[in-house]
Formats: sequence, structure tokens, C-alpha cells
Amino acid sequence: MSKINIGQNIFTQTMPVTLLGTKINDKPNFMTLAWVTRANANPPLFAVAVNRVHKSDYGIRENNSFSINFPSEDMITQTDYCGLVSGRNIDKSDIFKVFYGELEGAPMIMECPVSIECRLFDILELPTNDLFIGEVVAAYTERKYLTDDNLDIKKINPLILTMPDNNYWKVGEHAGNAWEIGKNFKD
Amino acid sequence: MSKINIGQNIFTQTMPVTLLGTKINDKPNFMTLAWVTRANANPPLFAVAVNRVHKSDYGIRENNSFSINFPSEDMITQTDYCGLVSGRNIDKSDIFKVFYGELEGAPMIMECPVSIECRLFDILELPTNDLFIGEVVAAYTERKYLTDDNLDIKKINPLILTMPDNNYWKVGEHAGNAWEIGKNFKD
Repeated sequence: MSKINIGQNIFTQTMPVTLLGTKINDKPNFMTLAWVTRANANPPLFAVAVNRVHKSDYGIRENNSFSINFPSEDMITQTDYCGLVSGRNIDKSDIFKVFYGELEGAPMIMECPVSIECRLFDILELPTNDLFIGEVVAAYTERKYLTDDNLDIKKINPLILTMPDNNYWKVGEHAGNAWEIGKNFKD
Repeated sequence: MSKINIGQNIFTQTMPVTLLGTKINDKPNFMTLAWVTRANANPPLFAVAVNRVHKSDYGIRENNSFSINFPSEDMITQTDYCGLVSGRNIDKSDIFKVFYGELEGAPMIMECPVSIECRLFDILELPTNDLFIGEVVAAYTERKYLTDDNLDIKKINPLILTMPDNNYWKVGEHAGNAWEIGKNFKD
């Protein structure tokens, strides 16, 4: 095996495609976001990395809240559109049906199989991006996305992003059971 | 559509499966990690969320560096094993062939299609987890994983994790081109 150095602008090899919901000037706004991870076990916290050029950055700071919505594959066109146009120039408030949980500043998307409303917990200011830490207030789905009371990824049918080739992918075949298949390992 | 509240312990709907490389007492250690995201555009920074109960937390603080390695599906058993056993009790230094780039404290895995070495940039201490921010020093692959000089996700064949059902998945069918398919959207 011969390793080659491919530089510094590298990405997580698969990224979850989400729509970040914020309120800007009292209207819902949605931005395509793939730089997101669970960040803390207890309480449940998420981290979302938003470039400060985006209007969503202002929306989160203004309302101390945001939502993370997971679109399904059949929403791919609208989802990608939200990454192409800026809330500075285009009103994105009527692309989706919007609903709210507890937080007025965290509009969520009715068409998305899973939505999470977050209260701003902390901000880590990085050179170009703000890393917003949000505490989960609640998560929402519909019964049709559950199997045995658990979210079923095949029913949700979410999108995965790869960069810098800029492709969307579906979730594929089951590969194994986590915290289980490793028990077969013999060192 | 009728939304139901499914509580607070929610996860990113798909998570990239990685192996976090650290050095502990001068030996390489690897921990399965799926709470990771790119965090900053320029310079390239990653955020990894590590529960403070893990030995890897100590390893990063000790050496101010870590690596992020993306295993392929054929490494699923060893990868899952690294999430089942702790570096506190088990020496995980000989599971993989190890190589180094510039940083002595960031052991990388030869068998992984993609590895990233990171210098510690900042730490955000959250209630149970440390969110380590790492600056990319370099990323490594092999020519066989490239198509037209770009990383090819189908050749890399990485693993995706879903929680709390705890399943590993493969990347599936191509769904569309990002920053492109949305141009077809008519509001």
C-alpha cells in the first residue's frame, strides 16, 4: 500500500443532508446544511457549522434557536435549491409547509420525516464558521416512519452528501449490527 | 400529516463511521467514532465529540493531535470491535497497520481508504463530551480510491451508522448532483 497526500481540503466521507430552519425578520428560512453532528450525550446537544456569510447565522443569533430537518430523497430538488439561493435575496418561507414545537424561533418542515428543534446552548466562533451548539428541545416524526416504535432509515429515505464531487446518495444495503458484529473479532 | 414528539435523545439520521486515532502512553489507540463533522471552511477544521469517559480524550489532550480514519465495509468487524472495548483495558495498537504523517501523536490506519491527521485547534467542553476542534494537517489515500483524481465514494465503500437502532449501512444509489439539481426548482 502506498499512501499519497491529497492536501487539506478534505470532508467527512459521508455527510447527512439536512435543512437548517431559522427565523429571519419573522419569516421562516431554510438553508441546506451537511456540517452537523451530535455533540453531547447528556443532555442531547447538536453542533452545526454555519459560515458567517449565511443569513441563517444571523437568524440563530437573533432568536437563540434553530431546527434541523432531514429531507427524504423525494425532496431532493427543493433541498438542493435551498443551498443554491440565499435568504438575503430570496424569500424561502413558502417552499415547505411549516410547523412549530415549543420554540417560536425554530420553524420546522412538515414534509421532512424527522425534525429537531434546538435551543441555542453555546457558540464556538471559528475563523470562517460559527459552530452553534443546540440543546434538543424535542424531535418530531410521523408514525409511518416508525418500525416497532423506532425510526426506520429505509422509510425515512434520507440523502447523503459527498464533497468535493458534490453528489447526493441514498442509504444502501444493511452491512451489520453495531456494538455486536465486533464481538466476532479475534485479535 | 400528524407529527408526534419522539423525545430528546435523537441522532443525526446518518452518521459517518470513523476510527479516531490517538497515542496513549506512546502506543497507537483507535476508537470507533461517528460524532464528527467538518466545522470550518478556511482553514479546514473538523469537530469530533468524545465522551470524557473514553481514554481517547486523554490521548488527544496529551498529544494535541488526533487522526480521523474512514474504514471500508470489509473492515466492519475490526471497526466495531474498537467501539466495544476500551483502550483502558485492551491494547488496540496491533489491530491495524499504522502509519504517520507529520504529527507523532496522530497514528493513522494503513488499511483505511482515507485518513486525516489533525492538530488540536480548540476544545469546547460540553457537559459529558469534549468537542475537539482539529486543524487538518494533511489527508491521505491510495491511487486506487481515486477516479479522475477525486476520491470515489463507491471505491472507498465506507460505513454509515444509524442510532438508536445501531445498524451499519453501505452507501446506496446515486440520487442527484448537489448545487445543480435544485436549479430545476420552480417555486
